[in-house]
Amino acid sequence: MESAIPAHLETPRARHKRVPDDYQPPYPSFVARYKPSVSRVVMAYFGVQHGGAAPAAMEALKELAGLFAMDGGPSHWDRASYRDQSGSENVVTVAYWDDLARFDTWFAQAREMWTGRQREGIGTFVEVLRPIVARHETLFSSPDRPEGVAVVAEGMSGEVQEHAYWGGMRDRIPLSQTDAMAPGGAPELICDGPRLRVVAHDNLCLIRSGQDWSDTEASERKLYLDDVEPVLREGMDFLRDDGLAIGCYANRYMQVLAADGSASEKSYGQSWWKSLAALERWAESHPTHVKIFGAAMKYLSTLGPSAKLRLYHEVTVAAADEQFFEYLNCHPKTGMLAAVETVST
Amino acid sequence: MESAIPAHLETPRARHKRVPDDYQPPYPSFVARYKPSVSRVVMAYFGVQHGGAAPAAMEALKELAGLFAMDGGPSHWDRASYRDQSGSENVVTVAYWDDLARFDTWFAQAREMWTGRQREGIGTFVEVLRPIVARHETLFSSPDRPEGVAVVAEGMSGEVQEHAYWGGMRDRIPLSQTDAMAPGGAPELICDGPRLRVVAHDNLCLIRSGQDWSDTEASERKLYLDDVEPVLREGMDFLRDDGLAIGCYANRYMQVLAADGSASEKSYGQSWWKSLAALERWAESHPTHVKIFGAAMKYLSTLGPSAKLRLYHEVTVAAADEQFFEYLNCHPKTGMLAAVETVST
Repeated sequence: MESAIPAHLETPRARHKRVPDDYQPPYPSFVARYKPSVSRVVMAYFGVQHGGAAPAAMEALKELAGLFAMDGGPSHWDRASYRDQSGSENVVTVAYWDDLARFDTWFAQAREMWTGRQREGIGTFVEVLRPIVARHETLFSSPDRPEGVAVVAEGMSGEVQEHAYWGGMRDRIPLSQTDAMAPGGAPELICDGPRLRVVAHDNLCLIRSGQDWSDTEASERKLYLDDVEPVLREGMDFLRDDGLAIGCYANRYMQVLAADGSASEKSYGQSWWKSLAALERWAESHPTHVKIFGAAMKYLSTLGPSAKLRLYHEVTVAAADEQFFEYLNCHPKTGMLAAVETVST
Repeated sequence: MESAIPAHLETPRARHKRVPDDYQPPYPSFVARYKPSVSRVVMAYFGVQHGGAAPAAMEALKELAGLFAMDGGPSHWDRASYRDQSGSENVVTVAYWDDLARFDTWFAQAREMWTGRQREGIGTFVEVLRPIVARHETLFSSPDRPEGVAVVAEGMSGEVQEHAYWGGMRDRIPLSQTDAMAPGGAPELICDGPRLRVVAHDNLCLIRSGQDWSDTEASERKLYLDDVEPVLREGMDFLRDDGLAIGCYANRYMQVLAADGSASEKSYGQSWWKSLAALERWAESHPTHVKIFGAAMKYLSTLGPSAKLRLYHEVTVAAADEQFFEYLNCHPKTGMLAAVETVST
């Protein structure tokens, strides 16, 4: 049993973790381990938005692949799609780096190509976090298939202690040893011609929470698709449509795409939160997530260790200067635009 | 909105509470408020145990009423019954004081009368906690009908902040401002002839958690009795039969008795725990309590503010010298006897 907080990020505590030192989690979980030399990770969500069949969308995705292939491009990326609340199709490509300098150099040009010029009939956006590793945590139900940011990590931990209790997410973030990570300020909109930027605030929180049912068979698959997925979808829809009142600025429930562009048997929810505390409160006590948690508990206790469903998440609490949001020709409920008042022009 | 911790028990914090200062609970709850001059409360569980119709049991209860009527007797008491895992009938009378000196004087004689002499065909026991008020908390869903220890309080608070999140129970206990309340040591048995005493350990935890459906009508009553109560009972049975592995020494799911001895429409679970942390873990993540929580959430969200069901609890984390357990002619799974190895003689 090891701590989710890597040894080199342990600091004298001003704040206690939520469980006693002899706490034993009831089942194993694992976290991504970066090389100690990695001080920051970068996660960038590149979106294409369109109303239906749009040749420009395919063109944009081809361009993006070209940008990724340039020097300084991401160490890993994956792609997913969803139809949002306005009926628009969105394809979001998430790219990861473990070297800020490489990213910064690359992004200066890539950004201009992506949100710096208009495309016929489509919108584009990019949402970037580049947290110090002390502001970030991951969790995996099994150690042998990294997803998302974990793909750029050196590997996986052994079994960690800080999970399977409410508050584990916070306790896995190294900064929680000394900082309550309270949010500061309100999101603001900056209009730069047609480019809309959102400047959020200190300790904005992002979660990407994924499901992979590709290994499930017969009865397990049916149980997931019939009993768990619809409840998960209901919760995701709630966050998308009514999240703002409880501190969720935006939520996307995404279907991961295979390399050939077809739907894979993986999904993830990606949501932006006013604070880690707001995310904690929803997860712990909102009826929509209590239902998700109950369905997952029932599923996992029915299947026991034989369950083939894979679950993971990554959570970041970003400082104000670790964030970048830019939207071009997207509707006003896209991503962090939903957190600010926009005037249609 | 006020803190559950009364102003005169606020201390400089060495430990943070789990929610930010601007946390707003989603519904109101209330706590008992003692006079600031009250430094300790006493809660004493007087039990009678028998195998069936036993005239000596009625006799013992009559005697107990006589003891209570003596000078120094309790400010409030209530009575409840249950059939335990061995098939024995148990009648437990819980008595409360807010003055330790009065209790001590009274108890010296009462104890000898209760567990100091054998009775034909029945067992008797007494379980006492006398915590400083900083080691104790209560919670009520409505402020107008005190139960248990709250009856000896001066009154009820206004709406308090520290509830409706996991960790609220701990945050309401004033000692949590400075102390993790970790358990110390293991329970030991002391045989004093036929009288068996259990000496537990520092930070032993007691919860009495009650339900009152006497005001519910028609459809609400049916919903409680059909959808909530069976799930609650299942969880209570789990704690009684299999609790030890997760730190629950003993659990009684009691039916409260009216003044005439008939069953009332109130119940409570009373359980002894190795630590507050063990109780927290069960409540937050054990499948049996997740089901209870889910059923209660569904019930309350169906009914909204019109719900007539009343819920309350009282929780104590007792220092080693604030505890007393004595059993005479009771079976080895009675109360805290279940936490120690007894040899039948």
